[in-house]
Amino acid sequence: MYFGVDIGGTTIKLGRFQGEGVLQEKWEIPTRIGENGKYIFDDIAASILNHAVQAGLHPSEIRGVGMGIPGPVLPDGYMEVGVNIGVREIYPSKELSKRLGIPLICCENDANVAALGESWKGGGAGFRSMFLLTIGTGVGGGAVLDGKVRKGAHGIAGEIGHITVRLDETETCNCGNRGCLEQYASATGIVREAKRVLMGTTRPSVLREIRNLTAKDVMDAAKAGDPLALGVAEDVGGYLAWAMSSVSYIVDPEVFVIGGGVSAAGEFLIDLIRKKYDVMTKLLYHKAEIRLATLGNEAGIYGAVRLVLG
Amino acid sequence: MYFGVDIGGTTIKLGRFQGEGVLQEKWEIPTRIGENGKYIFDDIAASILNHAVQAGLHPSEIRGVGMGIPGPVLPDGYMEVGVNIGVREIYPSKELSKRLGIPLICCENDANVAALGESWKGGGAGFRSMFLLTIGTGVGGGAVLDGKVRKGAHGIAGEIGHITVRLDETETCNCGNRGCLEQYASATGIVREAKRVLMGTTRPSVLREIRNLTAKDVMDAAKAGDPLALGVAEDVGGYLAWAMSSVSYIVDPEVFVIGGGVSAAGEFLIDLIRKKYDVMTKLLYHKAEIRLATLGNEAGIYGAVRLVLG
Repeated sequence: MYFGVDIGGTTIKLGRFQGEGVLQEKWEIPTRIGENGKYIFDDIAASILNHAVQAGLHPSEIRGVGMGIPGPVLPDGYMEVGVNIGVREIYPSKELSKRLGIPLICCENDANVAALGESWKGGGAGFRSMFLLTIGTGVGGGAVLDGKVRKGAHGIAGEIGHITVRLDETETCNCGNRGCLEQYASATGIVREAKRVLMGTTRPSVLREIRNLTAKDVMDAAKAGDPLALGVAEDVGGYLAWAMSSVSYIVDPEVFVIGGGVSAAGEFLIDLIRKKYDVMTKLLYHKAEIRLATLGNEAGIYGAVRLVLG
Repeated sequence: MYFGVDIGGTTIKLGRFQGEGVLQEKWEIPTRIGENGKYIFDDIAASILNHAVQAGLHPSEIRGVGMGIPGPVLPDGYMEVGVNIGVREIYPSKELSKRLGIPLICCENDANVAALGESWKGGGAGFRSMFLLTIGTGVGGGAVLDGKVRKGAHGIAGEIGHITVRLDETETCNCGNRGCLEQYASATGIVREAKRVLMGTTRPSVLREIRNLTAKDVMDAAKAGDPLALGVAEDVGGYLAWAMSSVSYIVDPEVFVIGGGVSAAGEFLIDLIRKKYDVMTKLLYHKAEIRLATLGNEAGIYGAVRLVLG
């Protein structure tokens, strides 16, 4: 029996798996921040033991636990800082290992773990190499090459949201640079771009009547044929395609998988990306596949278990 | 004893190596194109046997031969087409293997093989992951991650010259798209950009007196402080830095190595890149190293031997 753990700033998702990745049950516990992660690891250990026993299993039958954690984890397992969960200078796998008394605990950055999950059992299943783009409040990602998630020499591999796509941007991105993909293609960025366009013209649009505009509103209006919204959505597709064409010319994955809240726009979004991606990858006779993520917020627990299976 | 072979459109470079990559001798033979590569593989085999015997070695002592070849080689060793050397639908390693009577022959795309060489014994030696940029007539490259060269699912990994860096370009790149890095940062591109700037202004510049302007002229004038040439060189550094920052956010290599004819501009070019790269990689607290290639046109034979050593 294996457990997959996905630590978030508000909740911790857990899953119990049988054999090669068959999810038996999943549940959540709140993330109790404080004392440099003490409660987090106490709670995870207690919850795992409790669920093992409830399933009629002896704790000695726990073969391994994988964890995804928000923040960079160095190759030796050391984590300098995890701002969202209030930890600093810890070895997360050792923390859990000493509480559970079992040696096989693996831990990695949560975005990379989610990429591993989608590659294993989600939109990337059956492909040898995959690049995941997670389009939510921000734009994140992860590269899984030949079954291994690429962490990078400094822990930033897959951080595709901070690829520069505009040199004329005046607002600063969260990272401190200007013109990052995330400033245009994230949920926040889509709303910002739509507002910019609405302010800069008097063209009619259904978006003008919506208070507290969301990215979903923009994508829905685009799908329904609102010309102004469609223009914004096409730009979003164009920026994503641009970054993805760079990914192809650098690591050439077999498939791209699109996840995160904005990917709810579905095939409509894929088509917008596809059209521009194909033009920007002239050297690719056989184009990469572009697919939707399928695991939703279970990607983390699947990836965590994949991690521990090695 | 191992041999490294680097097949080019005009000459074939060969090297004889002892043990773990000690070059004993190197030489060249002309590339005789025709009969779907027959002469190429006949000549390579004869030359290897000849040099082995002259070195007082028995052909049975040949442990393996590695080859770099201009064109994409599929994972099973199949090459659909190599336009520069007039071959089509061949298995290059099998061709050489049947002539030499030894089984261990490896063959890969020449740019990837050169990247492997620089990573092993050149500017990338001692680093676990490297991205090579070769700036010559075109802009090529290769990613070596954890000691393995990344070929990509469709054979275009490392083709950084075709990353889009401008959306307003009107001229078409060799690849068919517009605004590729290669259109600005290759030797050809540098000359083209310098001419564009010279035509667009009456500002004085030493470049105006030069007939048959070369990229070296532009970089030399920039180094000497010619303001117009310096502007062009800064743009070149900026475009390279842009593409390299994308590489960092996608695979995050430990080191970048800059080779090819334009890299003769040396630390001057590295400094131009460094300045912009640092701004575009805000998430990188510890920046990637940027170094010059050191193997010159021996990178191919070194990489070829590394390939066969596995």
